Amino acid sequence: MSEDNLTKLSDLGEFGLIDELTNDIKPKNNSTVFGIGDDAAVLSYPENKHILVSKDLLIEGVHFDMTFMPLKHLGYKAAVVNFSDMAAMNGRPKQMIVGLAVSSKYTLEALKEIYAGMKKACEIYGVDFVGGDTTTSTHGLHISVTVIGEVEKGKEVYRSGAKPNDLICVSGDLGGAYMGLLVLEREKRAFQADPNVQPELEGNDYILQRQLKPEARIDIIDALEKADILPTSMIDISDGLASEILHICTASKSGCVIYEEKIPIDQLTFDVAKEFKLVPAVAAMNGGEDYEILFTIAQTDFEKIKSVAGVEIIGYITDEAAGQQLITNDNQSIDIEAQGWDALKKKNRDIPNTDKS
Amino acid sequence: MSEDNLTKLSDLGEFGLIDELTNDIKPKNNSTVFGIGDDAAVLSYPENKHILVSKDLLIEGVHFDMTFMPLKHLGYKAAVVNFSDMAAMNGRPKQMIVGLAVSSKYTLEALKEIYAGMKKACEIYGVDFVGGDTTTSTHGLHISVTVIGEVEKGKEVYRSGAKPNDLICVSGDLGGAYMGLLVLEREKRAFQADPNVQPELEGNDYILQRQLKPEARIDIIDALEKADILPTSMIDISDGLASEILHICTASKSGCVIYEEKIPIDQLTFDVAKEFKLVPAVAAMNGGEDYEILFTIAQTDFEKIKSVAGVEIIGYITDEAAGQQLITNDNQSIDIEAQGWDALKKKNRDIPNTDKS
Repeated sequence: MSEDNLTKLSDLGEFGLIDELTNDIKPKNNSTVFGIGDDAAVLSYPENKHILVSKDLLIEGVHFDMTFMPLKHLGYKAAVVNFSDMAAMNGRPKQMIVGLAVSSKYTLEALKEIYAGMKKACEIYGVDFVGGDTTTSTHGLHISVTVIGEVEKGKEVYRSGAKPNDLICVSGDLGGAYMGLLVLEREKRAFQADPNVQPELEGNDYILQRQLKPEARIDIIDALEKADILPTSMIDISDGLASEILHICTASKSGCVIYEEKIPIDQLTFDVAKEFKLVPAVAAMNGGEDYEILFTIAQTDFEKIKSVAGVEIIGYITDEAAGQQLITNDNQSIDIEAQGWDALKKKNRDIPNTDKS
Repeated sequence: MSEDNLTKLSDLGEFGLIDELTNDIKPKNNSTVFGIGDDAAVLSYPENKHILVSKDLLIEGVHFDMTFMPLKHLGYKAAVVNFSDMAAMNGRPKQMIVGLAVSSKYTLEALKEIYAGMKKACEIYGVDFVGGDTTTSTHGLHISVTVIGEVEKGKEVYRSGAKPNDLICVSGDLGGAYMGLLVLEREKRAFQADPNVQPELEGNDYILQRQLKPEARIDIIDALEKADILPTSMIDISDGLASEILHICTASKSGCVIYEEKIPIDQLTFDVAKEFKLVPAVAAMNGGEDYEILFTIAQTDFEKIKSVAGVEIIGYITDEAAGQQLITNDNQSIDIEAQGWDALKKKNRDIPNTDKS
């Protein structure tokens, strides 16, 4: 589309804009009584459900880099990382409310792309888009997403329930999102140095997708339910395995042992880590943004978990006094420390979405 | 406090910061199962309640001006304007989740002031602070608040229920918040021109409070319930009476007649409007940020509404074909137009919080 055909937001006004972005949205879930168009969304949950609420902010220049983040992917990711918080409680997302603050450089067409990504995520995950607030910002794009979900009463899983001898499990593989980010940043630097250079992204599809279009592991929640496993503690991996297992240990007042050799790492992640002269396990421990699920189960569920595809047992919970230990491939025991990306300490790099609802 | 004693956010890290800000928060409502400290807050509402969810963004340089907005007031206002959305549905706020994005210029002490204002609002309105997300921004302070509330099933009031001959009612008085803003902006200009000038704010307490520390009219919701009145439509006044009555008329597919002489305007608002050479009714129609409640009731509730203190009948609903009319004091009929502050059209001034959940 040529620049001439793009619609300035100032030509629309706030209510015109909201109408343009939301007029095709129709709620589908039983728990949504009324969605977009009044002072609040109206929801109705049955007596046997607990309601989950979580919020995450995504700030341009902090959580995402517009030079390599397609807008539609950004919208998708903003939704999905919040859906992941529902999975982390053993729940499922049902409604979403979005706040967008945009500077005047954004056009209607740009916002429609972001909304298209969000709507796609809602469609795939069965979530109703029930409202939002759109306003100006003085600088850049700020996305605030609140997700409401449900979990059967008594089935909610906190970070705090891990007990000594529980098995530590993780879904999928780790470190890929971080390797994807490093590749994107490398190509950005190359492009900035010489705009004629074509980005070398080929062959890196998997890790790029891990970074640009993560998924929430609701399928793991479904699989655990089917296998009749109620985890004792659970969290999603937004900041890296190290940071998340420490959250579980702190909340559960426990220690842990994790085996480096057990950490699931995809071959491409492994190869690219080596290319960047990084230890692959370090990328997995500290990379973040994989949005896999880290959880603990009772030893008595050991046979059951073997039937759940895509889950690895990577260690076990210990007494608090034993501390939090990583057993390396050469059989050394080292203290696990959260070196994950911290939003407020490391301002000079892109950081993943972190939250504490 | 001297600058030396202020704590840089970079010295704390995200999790240390969240702990500093939230360690004294304890949920009180029955509907709050678990608040701050996990991937999501866990709520439980009884079968006879609908759940209300609303979100508003407040952006530095757009919705507030740090040069005259005390941080504690800012926190209070950010919470209360969201509580007001619950009132606008005939509901009551119960939980709040906050997202803060802050640039590195903010100190821990500054954020504690904002939180102090939010906690105060929660205490006064009986709302539980159940979570949030804190992150960096590249520029300024961004506050995103999501409020969850409740309303008895069948008692929720939308914008869309107004019927011809319904009476149009408004709580409190209008235009004061806008006059307060004009006074603050005038004194800011005077100070910028000559930093030795002391601000002339004396005597303007009421309108300054209307601007800096608005309240949500939950008391009106209580009073209507006590009087056994269920409004036919309802909205809160964030953008100005004109904009809000047009929302009701659009959603209800109706027209309206409002009498200028009936619009409640405080004497100080009236006097300051004259000082600024403004027609007081124009300030009331287009000023915004008063957070009063605009609602319609059936004619049959006319006797009942007389028992509700602080509510004025300002007009009535008509057929859609009759349009939306303001009858001026000199008996002219003019079309009501929304000239309220529009976030995306008028970027060069402070705008009030606007939303469409």
